[in-house]
Amino acid sequence: MIIDLDLILSFANPIGAFVFALSGGIVAVRNKMDIFGAVVLAIITAVGGGTIRDIILNQPVFWLYDAVIIWCAIAGGLMAFFLHSFVDAFKPIRWADALGLAIFAIAGAAKTASLGHDPLFVVIMGILTGTGGGVLRDVVANRDPLLLKEEIYATAAMVGAGLYAALHFSGVPEGWAFAAGGLVAFVLRGAALVFGWHLPKSQL
Amino acid sequence: MIIDLDLILSFANPIGAFVFALSGGIVAVRNKMDIFGAVVLAIITAVGGGTIRDIILNQPVFWLYDAVIIWCAIAGGLMAFFLHSFVDAFKPIRWADALGLAIFAIAGAAKTASLGHDPLFVVIMGILTGTGGGVLRDVVANRDPLLLKEEIYATAAMVGAGLYAALHFSGVPEGWAFAAGGLVAFVLRGAALVFGWHLPKSQL
Amino acid sequence: MIIDLDLILSFANPIGAFVFALSGGIVAVRNKMDIFGAVVLAIITAVGGGTIRDIILNQPVFWLYDAVIIWCAIAGGLMAFFLHSFVDAFKPIRWADALGLAIFAIAGAAKTASLGHDPLFVVIMGILTGTGGGVLRDVVANRDPLLLKEEIYATAAMVGAGLYAALHFSGVPEGWAFAAGGLVAFVLRGAALVFGWHLPKSQL
Repeated sequence: MIIDLDLILSFANPIGAFVFALSGGIVAVRNKMDIFGAVVLAIITAVGGGTIRDIILNQPVFWLYDAVIIWCAIAGGLMAFFLHSFVDAFKPIRWADALGLAIFAIAGAAKTASLGHDPLFVVIMGILTGTGGGVLRDVVANRDPLLLKEEIYATAAMVGAGLYAALHFSGVPEGWAFAAGGLVAFVLRGAALVFGWHLPKSQL
Repeated sequence: MIIDLDLILSFANPIGAFVFALSGGIVAVRNKMDIFGAVVLAIITAVGGGTIRDIILNQPVFWLYDAVIIWCAIAGGLMAFFLHSFVDAFKPIRWADALGLAIFAIAGAAKTASLGHDPLFVVIMGILTGTGGGVLRDVVANRDPLLLKEEIYATAAMVGAGLYAALHFSGVPEGWAFAAGGLVAFVLRGAALVFGWHLPKSQL
Repeated sequence: MIIDLDLILSFANPIGAFVFALSGGIVAVRNKMDIFGAVVLAIITAVGGGTIRDIILNQPVFWLYDAVIIWCAIAGGLMAFFLHSFVDAFKPIRWADALGLAIFAIAGAAKTASLGHDPLFVVIMGILTGTGGGVLRDVVANRDPLLLKEEIYATAAMVGAGLYAALHFSGVPEGWAFAAGGLVAFVLRGAALVFGWHLPKSQL
């Protein structure tokens, strides 16, 4: 069975948008934004990474022709606003966030590979798609860039996108390469959460 | 009489750019930037929202073929720098800012509608165009995102752009839809300023 | 001898990327980011200005078809991370940064002029290309926008790009216009560093 990239993305994009929108909405509530600010920050977080990717790749912005993605982001923002104490206490939200990171990193890598770019750019655009929305969220909310500081966050995106690229350029079917890359990114990020893994810092 | 969108925008864009440039220049002066920083921040504030809109819509950036817009932004930045104490004391500046918000929100919505996009995107691009410049200003100046926190700011852009979209898609002539949407956005923002209206925040 | 713009840029872009990546990596180390954060911030600093330029000019992003630029940025980030105390003590780094500013400002101006834009936009895009990466670096690292505050920084980009534009539109060969503009930008920034020159600030 051939699994088509467009089919994969038609599921992956709305799911990733929803879970990232939750995280954007929670940051908005903590920053004492009103309901509208929560929805705006949720949308920025949900579609920011993919938007930068598409602009750099000179492709149509992915959500401009697929309103479902925006509705999923709005739903995530509203859910974070109204069910804040529930969502926040619900620790597995960090796992949902890890899922979003994994999905968007591989989605970004796969889209870049499908346009014929080199492996280096496939990996870079995977990192950018997976982490860009969170960076925009932190920049707009005037927070320190947590994603760049946290344990094995962008690194998980890089490893997952790298595995996807290795499989894709070896001729492995798209569905398998996508699943393997996403799984590795998710497990690596999850392990970092569970075991508190982190990379070395420079000795000052 | 048919009022053409291009004609409306040829007036709306320079006026909106000038009033937003004033606000950017004032923030620069308060942040102790020099005269050059004031002009740069004024330009970013004046054209930021429309630039992001045009990039996402894959259209030529609106000021790249209309130097008048840039000159209006430079004039606004210089005026804020040299007449700072006057402009700042001149309380109606907040009303000029509300005018800029209203103009750019409807201009962004109208441009998006003219490209054949759905109402959802017309409203979103209206909000983005009206508020994007101010968000960029606050991000570059490392301030909290006031526009997302303030009373009925982005909300006024949303309501105005929504009314414009409703009228536009009902077949109302462009001039009337533009005027009605802009008026409602301006009045709503003005009422929020006068009466201190705000939206509910999440109970933490 | 005719010196071709593409030839100039094939040298200027990697050199500029490397020296700017050093500055991005140093900021990352000071912000206690890990090795991966240092490389990401180095890449953002190195290619940020040119990326915004190319997106606004609706041109292919310059590093997407030239992997050497990205490798130079990665090398700069790693060098800053591992040799931090050496690089930081090595005061001439500020001169390397001034060199990057000069190179990128004129590269941005030259690319814009080659597309047939007016002198106003040639100068603006020169400023944007020279300073954009540093602004993105400071925004992502949640620092005050040093480049807009520092003595004669963006101003040096403006003067250099302005001289380039004057020579280019007077028919001076591209190689001479590029060299003269870059030299003036570098010397002006250097003089500001040595003598502590700065522009007037508004009297509050």
